[in-house]
Amino acid sequence: MNFCSDNTAGAHPKILAALTAANDGAAMPYGNDELTRRVEKRVSEIFERDCAVFLVSTGTAANALSLACITPPWGVVFCHPDAHITRDECGAPEFYCGGAKLVAVAGEDGKLTPAGLAAAIDAAGTGTVHHAQPASVSLTQATEAGTAYTRREISELADVAHRDRLAVQMDGARFANALVHLGSTPADMTWRAGVDVLTFGGSKNGAFAAEAVVFFDRAKAAEMGFRRKRGGQLWSKMRFLAAQFDAYLESDLWLINARYANSMARRLGQGLARLPGAQILYPVEANEIFVTLPETVILGLEADGFRFYRWPDDDSTTVRLVTAFNTDPRHVDAFLASAERHVKRVAASPT
Amino acid sequence: MNFCSDNTAGAHPKILAALTAANDGAAMPYGNDELTRRVEKRVSEIFERDCAVFLVSTGTAANALSLACITPPWGVVFCHPDAHITRDECGAPEFYCGGAKLVAVAGEDGKLTPAGLAAAIDAAGTGTVHHAQPASVSLTQATEAGTAYTRREISELADVAHRDRLAVQMDGARFANALVHLGSTPADMTWRAGVDVLTFGGSKNGAFAAEAVVFFDRAKAAEMGFRRKRGGQLWSKMRFLAAQFDAYLESDLWLINARYANSMARRLGQGLARLPGAQILYPVEANEIFVTLPETVILGLEADGFRFYRWPDDDSTTVRLVTAFNTDPRHVDAFLASAERHVKRVAASPT
Amino acid sequence: MNFCSDNTAGAHPKILAALTAANDGAAMPYGNDELTRRVEKRVSEIFERDCAVFLVSTGTAANALSLACITPPWGVVFCHPDAHITRDECGAPEFYCGGAKLVAVAGEDGKLTPAGLAAAIDAAGTGTVHHAQPASVSLTQATEAGTAYTRREISELADVAHRDRLAVQMDGARFANALVHLGSTPADMTWRAGVDVLTFGGSKNGAFAAEAVVFFDRAKAAEMGFRRKRGGQLWSKMRFLAAQFDAYLESDLWLINARYANSMARRLGQGLARLPGAQILYPVEANEIFVTLPETVILGLEADGFRFYRWPDDDSTTVRLVTAFNTDPRHVDAFLASAERHVKRVAASPT
Amino acid sequence: MNFCSDNTAGAHPKILAALTAANDGAAMPYGNDELTRRVEKRVSEIFERDCAVFLVSTGTAANALSLACITPPWGVVFCHPDAHITRDECGAPEFYCGGAKLVAVAGEDGKLTPAGLAAAIDAAGTGTVHHAQPASVSLTQATEAGTAYTRREISELADVAHRDRLAVQMDGARFANALVHLGSTPADMTWRAGVDVLTFGGSKNGAFAAEAVVFFDRAKAAEMGFRRKRGGQLWSKMRFLAAQFDAYLESDLWLINARYANSMARRLGQGLARLPGAQILYPVEANEIFVTLPETVILGLEADGFRFYRWPDDDSTTVRLVTAFNTDPRHVDAFLASAERHVKRVAASPT
Repeated sequence: MNFCSDNTAGAHPKILAALTAANDGAAMPYGNDELTRRVEKRVSEIFERDCAVFLVSTGTAANALSLACITPPWGVVFCHPDAHITRDECGAPEFYCGGAKLVAVAGEDGKLTPAGLAAAIDAAGTGTVHHAQPASVSLTQATEAGTAYTRREISELADVAHRDRLAVQMDGARFANALVHLGSTPADMTWRAGVDVLTFGGSKNGAFAAEAVVFFDRAKAAEMGFRRKRGGQLWSKMRFLAAQFDAYLESDLWLINARYANSMARRLGQGLARLPGAQILYPVEANEIFVTLPETVILGLEADGFRFYRWPDDDSTTVRLVTAFNTDPRHVDAFLASAERHVKRVAASPT
Repeated sequence: MNFCSDNTAGAHPKILAALTAANDGAAMPYGNDELTRRVEKRVSEIFERDCAVFLVSTGTAANALSLACITPPWGVVFCHPDAHITRDECGAPEFYCGGAKLVAVAGEDGKLTPAGLAAAIDAAGTGTVHHAQPASVSLTQATEAGTAYTRREISELADVAHRDRLAVQMDGARFANALVHLGSTPADMTWRAGVDVLTFGGSKNGAFAAEAVVFFDRAKAAEMGFRRKRGGQLWSKMRFLAAQFDAYLESDLWLINARYANSMARRLGQGLARLPGAQILYPVEANEIFVTLPETVILGLEADGFRFYRWPDDDSTTVRLVTAFNTDPRHVDAFLASAERHVKRVAASPT
Repeated sequence: MNFCSDNTAGAHPKILAALTAANDGAAMPYGNDELTRRVEKRVSEIFERDCAVFLVSTGTAANALSLACITPPWGVVFCHPDAHITRDECGAPEFYCGGAKLVAVAGEDGKLTPAGLAAAIDAAGTGTVHHAQPASVSLTQATEAGTAYTRREISELADVAHRDRLAVQMDGARFANALVHLGSTPADMTWRAGVDVLTFGGSKNGAFAAEAVVFFDRAKAAEMGFRRKRGGQLWSKMRFLAAQFDAYLESDLWLINARYANSMARRLGQGLARLPGAQILYPVEANEIFVTLPETVILGLEADGFRFYRWPDDDSTTVRLVTAFNTDPRHVDAFLASAERHVKRVAASPT
Repeated sequence: MNFCSDNTAGAHPKILAALTAANDGAAMPYGNDELTRRVEKRVSEIFERDCAVFLVSTGTAANALSLACITPPWGVVFCHPDAHITRDECGAPEFYCGGAKLVAVAGEDGKLTPAGLAAAIDAAGTGTVHHAQPASVSLTQATEAGTAYTRREISELADVAHRDRLAVQMDGARFANALVHLGSTPADMTWRAGVDVLTFGGSKNGAFAAEAVVFFDRAKAAEMGFRRKRGGQLWSKMRFLAAQFDAYLESDLWLINARYANSMARRLGQGLARLPGAQILYPVEANEIFVTLPETVILGLEADGFRFYRWPDDDSTTVRLVTAFNTDPRHVDAFLASAERHVKRVAASPT
């Protein structure tokens, strides 16, 4: 009964099965195989545009590599203070970019605002050699707060960015979860809204180690092949990375998985919303819930065998709950029942 | 009938099956799972010593990360001119080390010599700020020439290195192939001979993307966790990396695979040795053969559907042939038959 | 009548004269000369401790190099949001450190607070590979607000830093100005208060291009020689860098210059304090004044030929005024008279 | 009597005097001053072309910065094995480029050959992600062997480079010495021959710390301002860097100094050529002589108080002798007399 993260879930059986299917005979290495070609084609179809597609095995690599292609060593990447790239990647973007700067721009519900972004760019000193130079913006979709930027929000942010020639990267580790929530299309939620490069996540949504970096403008991808190799991210037996993504995209598995994970989050969120003393911090739009609970309730849940993280750290009485493509609804219901039981116990106990 | 590389082979069925077995239930991410613990323990047992073990998905990452832990940005890594780290990794070691220098030290049969290494170190200017500082030596085992350093050769090179406080890294992308050729033990071929850190390859020998960086001195591994994460090499669903290595080590699969691949190379090498006009360049000790053939024979083989690389480039009449854990002996025999046929045809044709 | 910066002032005549004196005969290059030895000895005497001293030509180089010696590529440097290292060096620390992160910790009057620093360290996730690791703290003395940390403030911050094994760097571009304000000794204001490495500025206080990086613990300086050379900061004709610093330290020239610059700032600050409508933002402790003035007064001053910067940017009605070792008191008085005239004109004009 | 290097000479009196002249009044910092403008204009005039000019204080910085503008992190810089950039800069180019590779191309008399360069480029694997990518060529003029590339040699090398889209950098630490030897013009020896960017040295020829990076195509200089600042190479009181270069160019001082240094080298070389048992290694074209002498003669010279370096290291009986703009002809004659005396003594002594 693990709600720690969508990465504690395993892989989808269809994705594992695809590996076996891909294991038939010899295949040329480093992406010069048919399966990789097929994935590249599929991604372009899904996004209704010719895309340059690069598969890698982790979200951190996908973010760092994509940012390095659009941010010089003296560049600034603007992002939300809670963004994975600035909080949880041990400086990977700084490493891959060659020493760039990540500048945090605060905003509600895990989102940058156009006004906040514009102000941050204005304050940065574009064109002056003394200051690191605004180069790119990273939007996390779904956000680290479990919310989703609307297409309009993306467009407005991209407009602010492009006005000053900044490129727009989307960290789509939970891209599918946001997409099905919005009921949007991949194209609308990305390049049509101004996104220049996307990290299209698979690992949190049924794959075990597969992310696609998708450039909507091939010119921006010119350095990517060298950067990927040099980062040690180019698999020799690439077909096994491609096989994951191929199965992920086959018959809408990625959308089905995301819809399911989101539905489990909704179920959990709705239950918690009814719980006295529980306070849900952000709209539950993707597959994450942040809820503040009485300390004794948290301890009770832990004692009952539920696993989750306190947020942002162990001193907090807010917990983060994450659902996945294979979350057992009985675990959700058991969590709610346990929480309810502990809440009642608290209410009944003398102060 | 593909002899291009051991990375055109797929994965061993037992290794794929292990993924499915590992997919049972939730597991904590980033290596905090039982399977990863088990692999770490197994590696320590195999090497008869407490080791710090770090799994990554590519050989390039394993090399670059291990070198970065023992080489400062102003350091020199000495290696053979044909070493993968200097020829085939697009500068990954330079990137991960923060701008270090790879200095080539020539030697026969793909091997560094103690005298050559000592001379290179002496010429480097240790202690003088004007010069990049000798920091480490990288030995490729098996070498890029398909040969294997003997334990004595390793010891002598390590002695030269340690005398001047250089650390010794072993690029063991084909570690198993060298080991079974020598009939040595993992411990004898590494730390007992003076190796400080090993990249223990799985991907070329039955895994699809699994390498272990093995530090024989935990103190040298202090930075590795941060470097791996920062390089985007830390899988969230680490159990799927660990599962590969676990199955790889189970019941000596890694040794069985290597023995088989080597035996196929021997079979191929012995056949070629009997072929008039064929010249084998290096002793066939692991799973690679470098053979010079008449141009028309090469063209004939290609026309017959055999795939392989000319070496070092397309202008050469030397070809590199690589066997793998699953090379079909009928392909080997067919290759020899085809070669023989084309050699005869050449001999019969008027000049 | 230029109050833009202490770097619009030229060099002190004694420092230029010292170059000529140093130009007598041949001298061994790269710091292997007597003058460099003498400066190293003098610095150690002034700081009452054996110091490792490295001369460089810019404050940015001094900061970036000193931070790189105490901050790994995955490290965090904590500093004030207004610190020169994060605002005005185009990412030099990130470059020299190999991709480290500068994390801003807000505080009044340009100063970090112990509580703020402790909270920032606590939030950073020490020991967890996902997060960049707290490594160092940079204190600017005098601060970018023209104030000076007291010895007690430095000690308390250093205690917080050392408790978690962070090193303490002091950006002493205006070290002398702070020192004479406090009436402290170099030793008390640095290593006795917990500073590990100091950039001891000369360029803003009478030299034309001379800064000394001073390590109070030689062990921390082990990499510095290589880093300086590699950064292109090691002068071949080093005696001309040493000559500047030698003259700077001779007969207390550095203290005399700083006292004078501070006295000019006080004179200017006291005059402005009496001016209706002028608001001085921070205590005037060193040689900088930040004052908010009516827009028309600013325009009037500019029209009268005074030069200065609006702060933090051109949209502001706060101006920064900086005095130097050679500020003409008549310029100060003329500035005050001009300001007073424009203030009166504003008051007299109909709204 | 120091023949160690042209950097043991001090500065030319006119250049020191120029500092004093430049010290009159306030000047805007960071190159926004008249003197810097004037130097930029003068350089463009001398090179008969609009140039982008950037002043820095060391040759290492000039080389590393210029190479970084034309070489990506995964790029290869081809250079002679004896080039300063690969032997004597502690990896500065690798650092500034972000981890590029320097590949040595051997050649007689310190010079690359077109055939050697072409072969090296061909072997490098352009366009393949596995290999670092050929990006630039660095020519040292005068070479580290004290010879000078002719205009034709430069053109031929630049043609080879440009054919494969590599940029051509010239390390002109001793640019003036080569120029006056050839009797060429600055334009003919650089951009008209295909040089894209030059480091125009002043420090070895009368300045004390002044080098100009000269881009003949402004587009290639787009990043330079940021890189220079970020490298800590942008002086705040830039006028004192500009003043050196201004005086250096005034009334042909740079050419006069170089002619003089060369003439002293010729005098020394002609004397040594007559000495029995002395063997001069390379044509004496600039201001360096490499001469092999009997060990006892070397020891005798040292005992007589002459200073010089054995080359390439202390085990060698080849010595390098360097003359400068202010070499005393009596020192040259004394050196020759001492050498002759010791040669005779050797000849006279019983074996």
